[in-house]
Amino acid sequence: MNQKYSYASLYKFTSAVFKKIGCSEDDAAIASKVLLSADFRGIDSHGLARLSGYIRLWEIGRVNAKPQIKIVHETPSTAVMDGDRGLGLVVAHHAMELAMQKAENVGTGWVAVKNSNHFGIAGYHAMMALEHDMIGMAMTNASALVAPTFSLERMLGTNPIAVAIPAKSEPAFVADFATTTVANGKLEVAQRKKQNIPQGWAQDKEGNLRTEASVVKDGGALLPLGGDREHGSHKGYALGSIVDIFSAVLSGASYGPWVPPFPAYIPMPQNMPGEGLGHFLGAMRVDAFRPKEEFLSHMDNWIKRFRDAKPIDEKQPVIIPGDPERAMEHIYIKEGISLLEPVVEDLQILAEKLEVEWISDIIV
Amino acid sequence: MNQKYSYASLYKFTSAVFKKIGCSEDDAAIASKVLLSADFRGIDSHGLARLSGYIRLWEIGRVNAKPQIKIVHETPSTAVMDGDRGLGLVVAHHAMELAMQKAENVGTGWVAVKNSNHFGIAGYHAMMALEHDMIGMAMTNASALVAPTFSLERMLGTNPIAVAIPAKSEPAFVADFATTTVANGKLEVAQRKKQNIPQGWAQDKEGNLRTEASVVKDGGALLPLGGDREHGSHKGYALGSIVDIFSAVLSGASYGPWVPPFPAYIPMPQNMPGEGLGHFLGAMRVDAFRPKEEFLSHMDNWIKRFRDAKPIDEKQPVIIPGDPERAMEHIYIKEGISLLEPVVEDLQILAEKLEVEWISDIIV
Repeated sequence: MNQKYSYASLYKFTSAVFKKIGCSEDDAAIASKVLLSADFRGIDSHGLARLSGYIRLWEIGRVNAKPQIKIVHETPSTAVMDGDRGLGLVVAHHAMELAMQKAENVGTGWVAVKNSNHFGIAGYHAMMALEHDMIGMAMTNASALVAPTFSLERMLGTNPIAVAIPAKSEPAFVADFATTTVANGKLEVAQRKKQNIPQGWAQDKEGNLRTEASVVKDGGALLPLGGDREHGSHKGYALGSIVDIFSAVLSGASYGPWVPPFPAYIPMPQNMPGEGLGHFLGAMRVDAFRPKEEFLSHMDNWIKRFRDAKPIDEKQPVIIPGDPERAMEHIYIKEGISLLEPVVEDLQILAEKLEVEWISDIIV
Repeated sequence: MNQKYSYASLYKFTSAVFKKIGCSEDDAAIASKVLLSADFRGIDSHGLARLSGYIRLWEIGRVNAKPQIKIVHETPSTAVMDGDRGLGLVVAHHAMELAMQKAENVGTGWVAVKNSNHFGIAGYHAMMALEHDMIGMAMTNASALVAPTFSLERMLGTNPIAVAIPAKSEPAFVADFATTTVANGKLEVAQRKKQNIPQGWAQDKEGNLRTEASVVKDGGALLPLGGDREHGSHKGYALGSIVDIFSAVLSGASYGPWVPPFPAYIPMPQNMPGEGLGHFLGAMRVDAFRPKEEFLSHMDNWIKRFRDAKPIDEKQPVIIPGDPERAMEHIYIKEGISLLEPVVEDLQILAEKLEVEWISDIIV
């Protein structure tokens, strides 16, 4: 049975943890908001389930709780930021703020980040742009788990892309997806439930498509969006590569198979060509293209027309990117956020270790 | 038996056709280069096979051979361009030049285009950035042929994305792909060869996945990259939507099911919300992020490392986006460009109709 917690109490606990390792008040607030936005939107794998993982990276010195984030180079519409090994949750937030400031000045802003760590869900950072009537974009590389088309070797991370586009009366268009057929979290869920996975999600360590949920854990690889060559896996491979190059080759972070692993117990790759993980954040002011009201009205019209598309099955209407996550938010606002039991146990151990008070007011 | 022609003679013929309908010397040269780049790169469906289609659009007044291309609005890093119903081949070229000029000034440049027509292969426009040590991006919407996840109705075009990234000694990284499982051309090829298509390429007009190659022609739809929900079609749907919104909602072109059809005999959609087709072109100076030599060397390193990835089958090494098209170019430079017989017949009819001299020096 999952337990349910109020956002406020989870926030209080999470920010206490971040402050305990030395984060400033402001940074702890940002990190907690970003992390919890994942749980809140139903993307459990990227939320509190990862908190103890971040702390372990801090324990071995790979995360710096007091980073001196610096702009290494800039032009009116671009910058490279050095995250000083800070929490990606915090570093990416500052990078997005810089991108928006540049968009304010010259129409668009693009910030590549090096020397960072995992930044949580890409969607959070992209969505920061919405309240400023800007289009937001966020991507990040991640440690290698994905085999390109024809490859046996894992060369790319799940390298997500998020794009958030504001509308007027309609909720925003928010796409946020791994550039693989599925994120690794889906395989973990199937493993827990002892279910098989569909053909096209993963290959084994000989390169055969397999349906066992443990296949990646056992040395295989996730597959790029498309699955196999015949279904366009070379397109997913290209997308994951673009994310890797924008995030790391533009910024000076490590790329491809050299991206630092998230689990603290996995040793760092040898001969890394750059510093830490990389991100790429972008912001475009909609009124840098056409009058704001015009753009927002046409987005409403776009969204309505797609919602009204004739569905295959009347019971399942066509949805807009961002709808499933918003539906989760609506449930969680009313009912509290549901955490899996192993996550709760993990957090309680963390609370004890760091001497931070655990949550007392469970909702259900 | 296909016939082979030299690039020079095809160029001479094509530019004579464009001049005959009233294009300026310069515009005819650009249009011919863009169109032929498709044949040259082995993307037959977007090259000379479409020339008579462009001319038919001119005949019914949908293509303006003497457009007054205008900048409608701009900021230092953005612009909206009105293509004045010109050939997309030409309009997109000018839009990309404007994007690069803005990148020269402020680091990046982004141009959304309305009131245009089909622009040929996206890759051509993106690759214009390479010789300036910039990353180039190009996307366009197209008439609706694709059903979003859960939709029976065709709502999106094949909406391609191209990204070209320069390297130093290695050839450039050039991704150029439709945001569907496959482009419609592959179904046409299967129809000609009387072959079935794989599950996941298309659905019939009741929304069932089918393997008959005629399924789209018979009122069905292409599927977004991913194919079905289980394999991530919602990601391909999101990508195609982003292309549509950037190309048309940002610019003021028509979007979704209202995009004007390419075949001149198909009537225009009713109640169009914008003008013509839309494109989105982008350029980022690599040295707006880090020193040029550093970036280019790391791109070489990225490309080499991916080429060296351990392959599943030693006979099929891992390739880099752009490799297959470059391989075609190498063959065609030596042997001449091969055109299918129906394309040759179509061009000969066009030559007669417009009283333009057909090619006499067939290579094979």
